Amino acid sequence: MYRSHSCGELRESHIGQTVTLSGWVAKTRDKGFVVWVDLRDRYGITQLVLDEDRTNAELLEQARNLGREFVIQIKGEVIERTSKNANIPTGNIEVLVSELTILNESKTPPFTIENETDGGEDLRMKYRYLDIRRNPVKNNLIFRSKVTMEVRKFLSSEGFIEVETPYLIKSTPEGARDFVVPSRMNEGQFYALPQSPQTFKQLLMVGGMDKYFQIVKCFRDEDLRADRQPEFTQIDCEMAFVEQEDILNVFENLTKYLLKEVNGVEIDSFPRMTYDDAMAKYGNDKPDIRFGMEFAELNSVAQHKEFGVFNSAELVVGIAVPDAASYTRKELDALVNWVKRPQIGANGMVYVKCNEDGSFKSTVDKFYDQDDLAKWAAATGAKPGDLICVLSGDANKTRTQLSALRMEMATRLGLRKPNEFAPLWVVDFPLLELDEETGHYHAMHHPFTSPKPGQLELLDTDPGAVRANAYDLVLNGNEIGGGSIRIHDKDMQATMFKHLGFTPEEAKAQFGFLMDAFQYGAPPHGGLAFGLDRLVAILGGQETIRDFIAFPKNNSGRDVMIDAPAPIDNAQLKELSLKLDIDLK
Amino acid sequence: MYRSHSCGELRESHIGQTVTLSGWVAKTRDKGFVVWVDLRDRYGITQLVLDEDRTNAELLEQARNLGREFVIQIKGEVIERTSKNANIPTGNIEVLVSELTILNESKTPPFTIENETDGGEDLRMKYRYLDIRRNPVKNNLIFRSKVTMEVRKFLSSEGFIEVETPYLIKSTPEGARDFVVPSRMNEGQFYALPQSPQTFKQLLMVGGMDKYFQIVKCFRDEDLRADRQPEFTQIDCEMAFVEQEDILNVFENLTKYLLKEVNGVEIDSFPRMTYDDAMAKYGNDKPDIRFGMEFAELNSVAQHKEFGVFNSAELVVGIAVPDAASYTRKELDALVNWVKRPQIGANGMVYVKCNEDGSFKSTVDKFYDQDDLAKWAAATGAKPGDLICVLSGDANKTRTQLSALRMEMATRLGLRKPNEFAPLWVVDFPLLELDEETGHYHAMHHPFTSPKPGQLELLDTDPGAVRANAYDLVLNGNEIGGGSIRIHDKDMQATMFKHLGFTPEEAKAQFGFLMDAFQYGAPPHGGLAFGLDRLVAILGGQETIRDFIAFPKNNSGRDVMIDAPAPIDNAQLKELSLKLDIDLK
Repeated sequence: MYRSHSCGELRESHIGQTVTLSGWVAKTRDKGFVVWVDLRDRYGITQLVLDEDRTNAELLEQARNLGREFVIQIKGEVIERTSKNANIPTGNIEVLVSELTILNESKTPPFTIENETDGGEDLRMKYRYLDIRRNPVKNNLIFRSKVTMEVRKFLSSEGFIEVETPYLIKSTPEGARDFVVPSRMNEGQFYALPQSPQTFKQLLMVGGMDKYFQIVKCFRDEDLRADRQPEFTQIDCEMAFVEQEDILNVFENLTKYLLKEVNGVEIDSFPRMTYDDAMAKYGNDKPDIRFGMEFAELNSVAQHKEFGVFNSAELVVGIAVPDAASYTRKELDALVNWVKRPQIGANGMVYVKCNEDGSFKSTVDKFYDQDDLAKWAAATGAKPGDLICVLSGDANKTRTQLSALRMEMATRLGLRKPNEFAPLWVVDFPLLELDEETGHYHAMHHPFTSPKPGQLELLDTDPGAVRANAYDLVLNGNEIGGGSIRIHDKDMQATMFKHLGFTPEEAKAQFGFLMDAFQYGAPPHGGLAFGLDRLVAILGGQETIRDFIAFPKNNSGRDVMIDAPAPIDNAQLKELSLKLDIDLK
Repeated sequence: MYRSHSCGELRESHIGQTVTLSGWVAKTRDKGFVVWVDLRDRYGITQLVLDEDRTNAELLEQARNLGREFVIQIKGEVIERTSKNANIPTGNIEVLVSELTILNESKTPPFTIENETDGGEDLRMKYRYLDIRRNPVKNNLIFRSKVTMEVRKFLSSEGFIEVETPYLIKSTPEGARDFVVPSRMNEGQFYALPQSPQTFKQLLMVGGMDKYFQIVKCFRDEDLRADRQPEFTQIDCEMAFVEQEDILNVFENLTKYLLKEVNGVEIDSFPRMTYDDAMAKYGNDKPDIRFGMEFAELNSVAQHKEFGVFNSAELVVGIAVPDAASYTRKELDALVNWVKRPQIGANGMVYVKCNEDGSFKSTVDKFYDQDDLAKWAAATGAKPGDLICVLSGDANKTRTQLSALRMEMATRLGLRKPNEFAPLWVVDFPLLELDEETGHYHAMHHPFTSPKPGQLELLDTDPGAVRANAYDLVLNGNEIGGGSIRIHDKDMQATMFKHLGFTPEEAKAQFGFLMDAFQYGAPPHGGLAFGLDRLVAILGGQETIRDFIAFPKNNSGRDVMIDAPAPIDNAQLKELSLKLDIDLK
């Protein structure tokens, strides 16, 4: 038996007991006649004590020479601590060591195993197993495990069945790039790793499985932006014989349940907003509604004056930034430069200081009088002390720019509080999205999403206007889940593939099995998938998913700890009937 | 709202209520003035009724024309059934239909959606979504979901943390073949899909995670034997600061918990047997102990007589088959032929009928008298009415042959009862196994398994004799789990790699990250993994895993439903810097 108790377990009630502990040496303090050792395991830290009066000399010497991160086992008596430490649960006791065994030694770790470490990101990733010993990472992983368990408990109690769908499936040209897996037994052929279990969950609905879920890894071979991973985890759900309302109810309840069980936060019911409203009010289909600063369209009050920039703009739109009228000229110039950065791309910014005395001071005073500016203030809801920021230009681009500014100002003002939770359903998404480069429409959600009833004919005349029963669940400005009511009619699915530019042959080659299935009694169905990595990060009050993943990959898709990917040998390639075809650049 | 109740829900207490149901038309019976429809969903079957007295003519006609597997929604009143059906929970009621909507039509399915279907394996796999509508398959998937949920509940309650390890890892030459995944972003390099999360779970132990589990897909690119799948699911577990006894306790308790929760069976404690004993008594390291027929070595009583076959044999070994003395000459000849089949490979079989009068009749009466045979009966525990079957030859081969015969006889005698559960720990496995072809030793479990304390030096002198703290959990003659205490010392791991034929460079290239990790305070640790597919099948009282997998692959590793794997286009290959290298045979 390696231990009678964990290092987080002993309390005053244990005083007098002889215990055995095992763990890592977090710290030793050598005061000459007395040595203290902080012994750490997953559950906490317990202080060990050895001194000249009570410990034999050899043992004391052994303790003195313990290095950081040595793994040791000790036996000793729980005693009351003279100088108590109220910061840790075991702070009232210490263990007087009578036996000590070194279970394994340790080289000096490349960074400190503390909450605030001196290790940079790269080093932490290379030695991830040491990083995981640190409380912040360890606690994130434990938190993730708790969240997934609660998800499973809730969905099971609602009658959902967890079904494992295959990982070795078929490559489809739709959407992002697939990772492929050459088949040795089927020469020249490849499996693909699933980007999601979409078609399989639909087939389970055709199979009568009714309420399905799965917490499952998905794969996308995309160029990695910051905080994207080539493999990620989805809470994947699908229901049959449901309308959108049924699905929103179930997953609103799931999210409420999680917020309550995991965060102790109770939320009554989630507001809903159409996609069009979200774009108009926040310039964003995943608005953070923990704070206001809603957009006000100013075309009617700002155009038809002498200011040419606004007059020629498709959209003039502003927000009132609370308590920012006090910005200095230098700060305001910096802000204008901020919106003009290439990442944001605005041509400029007009601002209006709403003075405490009710007057206004703007960068366009020569075109607008106080009455004009008062109308801007009324439209944006600006109060004395606020700063009105106005952007103008092409409607879509300007909204995106103002959305970025709104988020930036909220961050500066501390309005994005990690422990405040503001969920929101965004509904009525467009079915199709125009690819500005190619001029083609593609599916905004995916090609299996059903248009709203009665809108099918619009596909021919005004494809961009067709709305879908597609919805996203947004939490604190992040899309944490999304889904739709699916097509369950073979002919409608064929029509949809046609509009997405598939020939009938391509549609059949790629999705023939699904269209076949629709011929054998497919029920109405729909579903939703949560991005688990992000959900967990946000519930954990953080924005970065990487520290909620045990062994993440870097931005080149590499696991720097195990050094993967890596070359494979020629024999292995030959077995797979493959040759490398490398351009030597 | 598509339904107010499920098709398995309505009882006499609902009589008089107006309900809405949705589901599939399982059957229609048209008696002219009355039409009955069996409506099916995941939850059961409800009988619908329409008749000339109470239903309008148009509706009745519509019902008459419903095809099998049409998806319909009905509204109607729950009424008492005149001829009740005690076989189904809804058998006391029926629903008098007042509205009927066809939600989707269906072509005639390629096989009947009944418990006993007329569809062969190939057809069922191609239309798996229809197969899943059948109770036996549907119930297996629901059962699997329940088992995994109970596993998670138990392990969570024991303080285990579920941690997701990566799927895109590094190829290693050890063990079975890896599936590989070409990396586009890292030209000419490959990820591999994990055969198990072995090294990652060990790194989690180094990271202090202490009690880890994961229900996870694993991948092996092996030529598929019957009932093997290229992707399979493992319940993967690891613990730190534990000895073998701690691990056996936890997972014995898990298995007991499952047997109780899932099967309602209570088992006290699991017997244990060493590998050597299992081989000697059952010729098998995963003996089915639901029945006896233990091996009796007969060398001492059968050799040194006139029978040359036995005299020249390394081993003479027999079993007493209960109640088989009544086999006819023809049946016995068939049995002798059975053991001589190439799959079994025995040269012949000697048998002794134990007559009811206490006398014996054997095929070797000319070499052995009644006293001799009485000794055989005593050794094998044969009683009057039993048949003693004796094989001889090379010890290992003969044991394997007799093990096959023992299982065959148990099957014939109905002793392998699916609802009887006989778990068994097999312990003290050899560390290494001799590959007869190459003459090299390889790791019996895997190269991370620790030899038993004090046996390290035997590695040089008698490698086959080294025993490991490695154990299998056997249930009804199937290995459902296996594990070991791992090496946690860098030098011992290096020694092990050396004995397994790795050069230091190879060991470093493949497992350098693990040996590095062992330098930074690796705790003693060990673990176990269950094969979920088999575990679920056995708990479900079946031997075939395929019907417990939603979308299994066939023996060529193909998914015949989606037709994968499949060729990919040249552009995709080019992006991956690959060319096909196909031999045109």
